[in-house]
Amino acid sequence: MRQFDVVVASHGGLAGAMLEAAGMICGAQDGARAVDLRSEDSPESFAERLAAAVDPTRDTLILTDLFGGTPNNVAAAYSRDGAVRCISGANLGLLIEALTAAEPLGDALVERLVNAGRESVVDVSSRLVTKH
Amino acid sequence: MRQFDVVVASHGGLAGAMLEAAGMICGAQDGARAVDLRSEDSPESFAERLAAAVDPTRDTLILTDLFGGTPNNVAAAYSRDGAVRCISGANLGLLIEALTAAEPLGDALVERLVNAGRESVVDVSSRLVTKH
Repeated sequence: MRQFDVVVASHGGLAGAMLEAAGMICGAQDGARAVDLRSEDSPESFAERLAAAVDPTRDTLILTDLFGGTPNNVAAAYSRDGAVRCISGANLGLLIEALTAAEPLGDALVERLVNAGRESVVDVSSRLVTKH
Repeated sequence: MRQFDVVVASHGGLAGAMLEAAGMICGAQDGARAVDLRSEDSPESFAERLAAAVDPTRDTLILTDLFGGTPNNVAAAYSRDGAVRCISGANLGLLIEALTAAEPLGDALVERLVNAGRESVVDVSSRLVTKH
């Protein structure tokens, strides 16, 4: 049972699509929400929707699509509070690890998730060994 | 000018959403296609659509959402040919680096892209230093 909420923040419909894809693998998850930066958004209007997606009574992990992008920069402001943590560069492996985590949202879990995200980036071609 | 095609292969609508999000940042790109695994797909029907998305006259980089997932496993079969390379665990930073790459699709570029994908997974909270 996950002890924190997960909010995915991205450009376009990427956040919602990530949650949809994760749902195909580990089932629909409670306490998981998507906030999408739309082309008509300002940083301020995006910040309002992100704030609405963060439940102040729950620890929250915000996963963003791109370090330095607007969703990430807005989310970073929320993660000054220790109850909200933020990891950029989310891929599907990281999201699934986060959605299925049993640990509390602290330094150890954040480090494990960052490593999981990094380790899931693999040169698949080089893993293929042709046996003769 | 990119010297190869990019095909994103994923569960659900994630691949298309990744290309849409990348387009918000670096503009719409020629020679970039999405192939989505749908809930009604078999590995065989997905493989047919992936094959249709790979132009045999062009070097092609396939980016997949998850090492070990069906899109990745099907794509791995294509990357036995040196003209097709496959990287799993794609995030938006990796995709943008791939779409805007000028180098030919070889070992050096694949290594650079894997590193770019990994390095874009960042514990943003720990980067925030409160100044007094």
